[in-house]
This record gives sequence, structure tokens and C-alpha cells, in this order.
Amino acid sequence: MSDDRYPLHPVGRVESPLTDPGAAPKQGDEGAPEAWLVFAEAYAPALDGVRPGADALVLTWLDRARRDVLAVHPRGDESRPRTGVFATRSPHRPNPVGLHRVRILQVDGVRVRVADLEAVDGTPVLDLKPVLDGER
Amino acid sequence: MSDDRYPLHPVGRVESPLTDPGAAPKQGDEGAPEAWLVFAEAYAPALDGVRPGADALVLTWLDRARRDVLAVHPRGDESRPRTGVFATRSPHRPNPVGLHRVRILQVDGVRVRVADLEAVDGTPVLDLKPVLDGER
Repeated sequence: MSDDRYPLHPVGRVESPLTDPGAAPKQGDEGAPEAWLVFAEAYAPALDGVRPGADALVLTWLDRARRDVLAVHPRGDESRPRTGVFATRSPHRPNPVGLHRVRILQVDGVRVRVADLEAVDGTPVLDLKPVLDGER
Repeated sequence: MSDDRYPLHPVGRVESPLTDPGAAPKQGDEGAPEAWLVFAEAYAPALDGVRPGADALVLTWLDRARRDVLAVHPRGDESRPRTGVFATRSPHRPNPVGLHRVRILQVDGVRVRVADLEAVDGTPVLDLKPVLDGER
């Protein structure tokens, strides 16, 4: 089932004061800073309707992750038993798509300021989705 | 920012009684049936630790979606104003990655039975992630 028929195209990049993946919080609720999602101008129409105050899900490409790792010690803690990556949120997984829940703070053209994003500066952005009621 | 450096590899497929995308519920909480996620054998180690009763997020590739659509009438309702796809959960978007919250019912080798999956039969599966506390 491995093939390349599904190429992802980054639609933007993260601008963040976080630059060191090792120092970045593992999840957004662990003290992640504010960051900007900077979309390519071509995607401006896709942002119509994105409003400050909304909760959203950001999908990113974790470009520093390893795709050949199928089991990890959760949260890098070697005292914890090795676990399949589909039971963890490790960045290392066959398709290293990061999923980040954020609060939208500001929309300025194709620049979207968000709270609680743990992705490091330069991370490619793939998608932005509103949070559904059932996901709150 | 468009390039093909990020190819996705399907890790499995959905087996579901849903076969007609037009008749499928728009979201899993709208009466979606049980379905199976059938992973390729190579990914068996990645499933170690996936347990019945857990809530999980399934990422799929919406292979019938259009990637060139940047604005839609929400939920296909033409009485609603056209909205940028990043403010909707439309399948049509630059990177048509579907995000589905499910409950895991059964794990049988590389077959995982889930409740509330609205994806149609044959949909490629990209990833399975546990739901974090903050996402409940």
C-alpha cells in the first residue's frame, strides 16, 4: 500500500520564537508561545471566514521526524515501555502529520496569529480546520 | 511553496458499509456506522498499545476531493454564503486530509474496528493518533 500518489503541498509556514525542537514543548498546552501561520498569497480565498476567537486545528508536516520508526518510548521517557506510534503522539510515524489545537487570535491578510502552537519556526503548514462542536 | 517533497504513504484502508460519498454523513456524530481500519501487515508494530475503549483520531486521504477549490457553500448548502475552506470541514481543500474522531471497539491483529467513522469504503488511512486530554 506504499505509493506516492498523495503528495502534500505546503500552504504556508509557521513563524515562531521556538527554534529548537529539543526545547519545544511536546504539546500546545504545555506553555507553547504565540506564533504566526503565514500562508502563501494564493491561499487567501481559503482563509475567508477564519475569525479571531475561534478554536482551530492546524495540520503540519513534521519535517524533522523519522518515518521508519514504528514504536517509541512515550514522550521520550526510556523508563516507559516501548509503544506503537499509533498509540502515541510521537512525531515519528509513517506519515508525520502534526495535529495542533490552537486558538485564533488575529487574522491579518494571509497571516494568522495563534495561541498554543508547539511547532517550531519554519514548520510547513498543510491545513487549517475549524474545531467541530463534538470536538470541544 | 508548492512542491512534492512530502509524499503520503497509505498505511491501510477503511472497510465500511458506506459506499456512496453522496449518502455518507458529513460527520461521524451524524449516524455513521461501525467500520474497520485495515492496516498493512508491515505496520503491525505501530498498533502495539492501541486498545478498545480509547478515543482516537483517524487521518485519511479524501481521494475523491478536489484540491483546487478554495471556497465552498458550507455543508453544500447554497443558501449559506461561500466561505474559505480553511473555515469549513469541506473535503475539498488544498491538502484533502480527513480528520475523524472515533471510538476504538476492537483490535484484531492489524484490523481495528471503530465506531462513528463517516469515511466511505476504500478510503486510504494515513495515521491513527490517540486523543489527548485537552482534546476531550
